[in-house]
Amino acid sequence: MAAEIAHNVHVALGERAYDILIGDRLLDHAGSILAERFPGRRYGIITDNMVAEAQLPRLLASLDAAGLSHSEIILPAGESTKSFAHLETAVEGILAARLERGDLVIALGGGVIGDLAGFAASIARRGMDFIQMPTSLLAQVDSSVGGKTGINSPHGKNLIGAFHQPRLVLADLSTLDTLSPRQFAAGYAEVVKYGLIDDEEFFFWLEEHQAEIFAGGPARGEAIARCCRHKARVVIEDEKELGVRALLNLGHTFGHALEKDTGYSDRLLHGEGVAIGMVLAHGFSARLGLAPSQDTGRISAHLKKAGLPTILADIPGALGSTETLMAAIAQDKKVARGALTFILTRGIGQAFIEKNVDGAAVSAFLDEMRGSA
Amino acid sequence: MAAEIAHNVHVALGERAYDILIGDRLLDHAGSILAERFPGRRYGIITDNMVAEAQLPRLLASLDAAGLSHSEIILPAGESTKSFAHLETAVEGILAARLERGDLVIALGGGVIGDLAGFAASIARRGMDFIQMPTSLLAQVDSSVGGKTGINSPHGKNLIGAFHQPRLVLADLSTLDTLSPRQFAAGYAEVVKYGLIDDEEFFFWLEEHQAEIFAGGPARGEAIARCCRHKARVVIEDEKELGVRALLNLGHTFGHALEKDTGYSDRLLHGEGVAIGMVLAHGFSARLGLAPSQDTGRISAHLKKAGLPTILADIPGALGSTETLMAAIAQDKKVARGALTFILTRGIGQAFIEKNVDGAAVSAFLDEMRGSA
Repeated sequence: MAAEIAHNVHVALGERAYDILIGDRLLDHAGSILAERFPGRRYGIITDNMVAEAQLPRLLASLDAAGLSHSEIILPAGESTKSFAHLETAVEGILAARLERGDLVIALGGGVIGDLAGFAASIARRGMDFIQMPTSLLAQVDSSVGGKTGINSPHGKNLIGAFHQPRLVLADLSTLDTLSPRQFAAGYAEVVKYGLIDDEEFFFWLEEHQAEIFAGGPARGEAIARCCRHKARVVIEDEKELGVRALLNLGHTFGHALEKDTGYSDRLLHGEGVAIGMVLAHGFSARLGLAPSQDTGRISAHLKKAGLPTILADIPGALGSTETLMAAIAQDKKVARGALTFILTRGIGQAFIEKNVDGAAVSAFLDEMRGSA
Repeated sequence: MAAEIAHNVHVALGERAYDILIGDRLLDHAGSILAERFPGRRYGIITDNMVAEAQLPRLLASLDAAGLSHSEIILPAGESTKSFAHLETAVEGILAARLERGDLVIALGGGVIGDLAGFAASIARRGMDFIQMPTSLLAQVDSSVGGKTGINSPHGKNLIGAFHQPRLVLADLSTLDTLSPRQFAAGYAEVVKYGLIDDEEFFFWLEEHQAEIFAGGPARGEAIARCCRHKARVVIEDEKELGVRALLNLGHTFGHALEKDTGYSDRLLHGEGVAIGMVLAHGFSARLGLAPSQDTGRISAHLKKAGLPTILADIPGALGSTETLMAAIAQDKKVARGALTFILTRGIGQAFIEKNVDGAAVSAFLDEMRGSA
């Protein structure tokens, strides 16, 4: 049977160019797709124990049917896997499997696995090719595309890593059916982000199609393809995030600080932190007189309808002090030569990079947002 | 006082181009050189406890005199520092010092520190600039130039790392005066290597100037500059080692296997392994009828005069079995798709890459070399 590729988004990065294939049950066709595109390679699959149970058998059956040689490295699920210790396990696993420079690493899983496996591939034998097979909505629309790989540090998220583009992204829509509603919603926050950055029309389209996207209709694949096209365009323009790519961090500076404060735990998923962060970024922009405050309300309503948290008080348990949050914001890697850099906005679809944000104003705004809890 | 730069070798790698400055007491001038070339940066110095004692005070005094801000990360000396654990210490140290993307990491030390600090810089904040300040002969003529960085794996040497070019190399000749004769000789093996690869005239020049190089006369700086020019030329032609750069591995496949077998210990320094490896590569080429056997003798005599080991029996203690050595050779990263790749030679200055070396012939040759011990 032929693969049902509903969308093919090309990332035109010269000699690092690759395709993002989006479609139903692509994992069942992975073997034939890989055999055709990368003849004669061997494969090392990195995944986590949850995804190994839900998706790995399909991928292995497909590789076996195509006669492809493979080995597996299974790590624990969860954000805490993005550590030095698990990076070492992944890299040593690649070496123990005797994969060579011409062979391929497969990242099968969500954002954590994609970031970790991509980073492991980038440093094993000083750089091996790898393929992203994202199984979460967040990974399909964001982390699997664009080549940012890495792990977390006690000093902050994603502070250690490499720019390493995949050779192919295979997004199987059927994997999303196994996500919990909470995980799906968390990924949806990143979908909304693309509309908020510079595509007002996409945000309005999401307002109309939200139910269909959550139910799994054709709008789901369409939304994912639109996000990938958006991200591909940005990555082509600014691969190493020296400029415009920073817009993709909308909501992330606040979000990362909240994630750090909650210990990268189940209390707050990454996408949930981004949801609150985007509302905060809009609210702070409104406070500065840059954006209409009704936009903040409209965004907040849309995210809430998706089941996402939108205010600090939605986070279970006590948060650290404003000083602690500000310290986390200052250590976030989107700091340039001491000045606070934030993604601010003039309204829905009008985000911009502001490199001289007054820390005291952010701190006062956060204080107020805590008080309003 | 102005810096006494005796040689400036430019590595023309486009936007990754950099200079190698070679001269006496350059560490004492580092502050003014850096202030002029990289205004407004902060510095994180990574070094080891031995070099910290011998060289760090000079560098710090020079940075202080130029008003440059700096912090220091001091690791234990020795090959075992090229591990995941010390990589983590180095990276977290960079982050703890709050160095930003625009700041600079300085690798002050020999090959171990250069490889480790360069790798740490390449992954901290997904890539920071760094400067090599090599303090050993081996680092000055080889490891500090060309952007290969990394750590060792239980599966083999340098199997984990990145290609990350320095922004500047500062080779202070006076640091070589503090090396032990054994360490200096080990570095000298890499000097000889450049002649053996494709520069017969340089090898003959070394035979004439060996005493002056060991005594510290002007021929020492001249030899280092010639090695750097050679390496720069190769790196410009083949930065990622897809082809001709592999010639620089002459003697290294045997050498790495011996280093692994002796536990990367004081029993065999890297350059000592390379010395024996180069003699073995010439001997094996002669055995295959490719090279004149008198070349092997001439090379061996030159290395011996430098105080280097040249045969397996020169290694103190018992070696592993030939099978163990062959397994290490097969796992060495210079393996392409299963076939054994070796740097062989047709004589002094005539090395070439052979991708289809018969493992059984290598094994038989090693057996014989052990027997002749």
